[in-house]
Amino acid sequence: MGIPIAELGKARIVRGRRERKREKVKDFINWFNKVIMDAELYEYRYPVKGAYIWRPYGLRVRRMVEEEIRRLHDESGHGEVLFPVFIPLEYFSKESEHIRGFEEEVFWVSKGGKDPERLILRPTSETAMMPMFKLWIKDHTDLPLKVYQIASVFRAETKSTHPMIRLREISMFKEAHTAHADREDAERTVREAIEIYKKIYDYLSIPYLISRRPEWDKFAGAVYTIAFDTLMPDGKTIQIGTVHYLGTNFSKVFDVTYLDKDGSAKYVHTTSYGISERVIASMLAIHGDDSGLLLPPNIAPIQVVVIPIPQEGRDVKGAAEKAAEELKAAGIRAIADLRDDKTPGWKFNDWEMRGVPIRAEIGPKDLDKGVITFARRDTGEKYEVSREEAVDFVKELIVDVGDNMRGEAWSNMRRSIYVVDDIKEALNKLNSGVVVVPWSGDEQCGLKMQESLDANVLGVPVDSDPSEQIGGHRDLACPDKEANYWVRVSRRY
Amino acid sequence: MGIPIAELGKARIVRGRRERKREKVKDFINWFNKVIMDAELYEYRYPVKGAYIWRPYGLRVRRMVEEEIRRLHDESGHGEVLFPVFIPLEYFSKESEHIRGFEEEVFWVSKGGKDPERLILRPTSETAMMPMFKLWIKDHTDLPLKVYQIASVFRAETKSTHPMIRLREISMFKEAHTAHADREDAERTVREAIEIYKKIYDYLSIPYLISRRPEWDKFAGAVYTIAFDTLMPDGKTIQIGTVHYLGTNFSKVFDVTYLDKDGSAKYVHTTSYGISERVIASMLAIHGDDSGLLLPPNIAPIQVVVIPIPQEGRDVKGAAEKAAEELKAAGIRAIADLRDDKTPGWKFNDWEMRGVPIRAEIGPKDLDKGVITFARRDTGEKYEVSREEAVDFVKELIVDVGDNMRGEAWSNMRRSIYVVDDIKEALNKLNSGVVVVPWSGDEQCGLKMQESLDANVLGVPVDSDPSEQIGGHRDLACPDKEANYWVRVSRRY
Repeated sequence: MGIPIAELGKARIVRGRRERKREKVKDFINWFNKVIMDAELYEYRYPVKGAYIWRPYGLRVRRMVEEEIRRLHDESGHGEVLFPVFIPLEYFSKESEHIRGFEEEVFWVSKGGKDPERLILRPTSETAMMPMFKLWIKDHTDLPLKVYQIASVFRAETKSTHPMIRLREISMFKEAHTAHADREDAERTVREAIEIYKKIYDYLSIPYLISRRPEWDKFAGAVYTIAFDTLMPDGKTIQIGTVHYLGTNFSKVFDVTYLDKDGSAKYVHTTSYGISERVIASMLAIHGDDSGLLLPPNIAPIQVVVIPIPQEGRDVKGAAEKAAEELKAAGIRAIADLRDDKTPGWKFNDWEMRGVPIRAEIGPKDLDKGVITFARRDTGEKYEVSREEAVDFVKELIVDVGDNMRGEAWSNMRRSIYVVDDIKEALNKLNSGVVVVPWSGDEQCGLKMQESLDANVLGVPVDSDPSEQIGGHRDLACPDKEANYWVRVSRRY
Repeated sequence: MGIPIAELGKARIVRGRRERKREKVKDFINWFNKVIMDAELYEYRYPVKGAYIWRPYGLRVRRMVEEEIRRLHDESGHGEVLFPVFIPLEYFSKESEHIRGFEEEVFWVSKGGKDPERLILRPTSETAMMPMFKLWIKDHTDLPLKVYQIASVFRAETKSTHPMIRLREISMFKEAHTAHADREDAERTVREAIEIYKKIYDYLSIPYLISRRPEWDKFAGAVYTIAFDTLMPDGKTIQIGTVHYLGTNFSKVFDVTYLDKDGSAKYVHTTSYGISERVIASMLAIHGDDSGLLLPPNIAPIQVVVIPIPQEGRDVKGAAEKAAEELKAAGIRAIADLRDDKTPGWKFNDWEMRGVPIRAEIGPKDLDKGVITFARRDTGEKYEVSREEAVDFVKELIVDVGDNMRGEAWSNMRRSIYVVDDIKEALNKLNSGVVVVPWSGDEQCGLKMQESLDANVLGVPVDSDPSEQIGGHRDLACPDKEANYWVRVSRRY
């Protein structure tokens, strides 16, 4: 990953790579809370548990992420819709597994505390969509039907909440809902959704594990659930996306049928898949360091900050402003920081903390030589580039920084995945990452494994063959049983 | 308004203007409900009162409108934020006028119907913002603070609800909130907000009246409210935007102060201003006709539809596809409708109904002559344009159609505003528009006027001098009092 340095234009390297310090990041919760506030990205002091505020800088990041999510869904034939927040309790309760899975964490709504109309705030929208699918789907020519929305959903969490990670109002929930003529077509869309999500994570330079959730942890009402997890700096995983094949579980209770070519009415097969602001939380967590945030250039609201290094009698400010204008004219999100009441060093630290991936410096020496000095936030390398070549150089650098961040993040995650078949060793490794252990596939043994490891079974890998070289291993929790799969286990958010 | 025809490029006019029929539109509610469903823009069959669905075509329109709203707020120094839907009842109740104005229409939230946490769903966000303003504002350098969000707000309407017009979930509420050092600066922002809103309505070719709402109809908690109304095809007005100067009413109860240059702590002066999907509802209503919708080109998801007129042996489809590609390459939102199972006539009607402002036709004769025939939806005029000049022609036509729609809408509204000083005449005119009548300014007389006219006082004009030529007139409802203002009165949504 990453363009070899020699190929980054005709840039002269004036400072080599520096190791990024990531000590503070390991005290993850404290680091995270501090940095999202310091960067004025997010506000967690709102007086309602589990409800927080996106501030302008954070919302600009979020809008960039949403834009890419929309683009990928639109180009693959999903129509964007917006459904109401309210769902009648009567509809929500129709699918028995679904209501059982959610009833503990549903908010009810009433007018002024009286006259309960039996409305809930959606925790997810399957039961809002299905009555409409019933109206919109007549025959096979209406299928597949693929819609998505980006909106708030609500979960009355009893566990402790956490900014951007565990919320009672998930305000950036992208949920897609689709209906199909048969299982085959529905599962084609399950695979398509997985590919869309991989593209989203790649865009944000986030590494991921794809696992099929065990039966006891699948979405309430699903036939099966495929989930994406990534690894946080403290060794816990976080679920950052799920794709559900729902079979005819929902279409049967809502009586959603279509007229097939042969004239018979058949139940549609449905899927749903979701992603939320957790993708932003994990992006911040994975790339950050002791100096603060590091935003992937794809979604950085400011990709390049140009900082003049003043000297009496030299117009470095004019040159910085001109450089920023030229970058902007080329479609690069650049600003010049021309503040007089801050020193260059203060500005360097401030923009580093806010995660701007590329810094440009223009001082008297740069003026003399007709160059701009660029410093990349990910490796610390500095380059001297002639002014004429600056725009092309930055365009290349933007790609290289994103690639390098992605490569580094994947390496870090891979280093923290441990294949073990011993409980003691598994317990040890769980403090710093994911363990992959042998499992028979038996539910009771899986639950026992969770208990003895004080961790969660993420599921069997979908992105590799879980039965490879399992022969001869015994189930970690039930040694009397032969193992059939490798299964991922972790502590998690 | 509108470029004189002779200047629309070198286009040859092959069909002149046609009068648009607007008979069905006058049966407004039925016309509106039918057309938003037929055009697959909106869905009103959702099983919760006052809660509806934006379908993909409608949401594309809405996103275009939101984009312009964002652009105008961003460029005038507003930061976009996103606050939680939940407000603690305790905070909501702090400002006594505010809670009195809203308490009848507030939704309460509880977990599973029990344990009321005393949370409400925001009907507007002043009381959510203020505690945060208190944290964010330290001294005069933090002022002005200007933020906005586009999000759902909730009103437990007791009146009958109506798709896109009277909602219990207003899902496209743009609310701006600002804090200032003094009244003067706050009122500068009131004027700025009015200019922003004028630009939004102009962009959507919507005419408007700007009035200062009477005391009894101002926003609960405001010092005063400036409101925008427009006229619907049935002669009723609809409020499409409001701007409030809130003085120190909210800052005092939330104790939001700043340290002034002189070292003293002072209360901030605040404003708020809002606009909602009503702006889209009125845009659809004002421009539509008996054939369906007409979308202003600025926000039409499809600005040009290219329709081939088939003839055996001629490649009109290829030519239509190429024309659409060329228009798209020039940044115009164009598609070619190449469906084989629909006739050109069916397509003409269908796209007219969906409001596409410009149609291009390519038949064998057009191929022979090397031209494309363009038909504009607003005037019915048809032009023959050489293929080479088509892109430039369409760019001009897009502007001309928007201007012509704006001009026509303003003329229509102006024709329905009647200056009268007689109750009988006022009652008569109120069936088709707005009356402007003499008023003393006395609240009791204003309320009496509302009652005898069975209509609402919109307020005294802000966009013209309300005291002009009022001399000698008597208050319409209190003939013993001298009139001091002209005041607008209408039936309204």
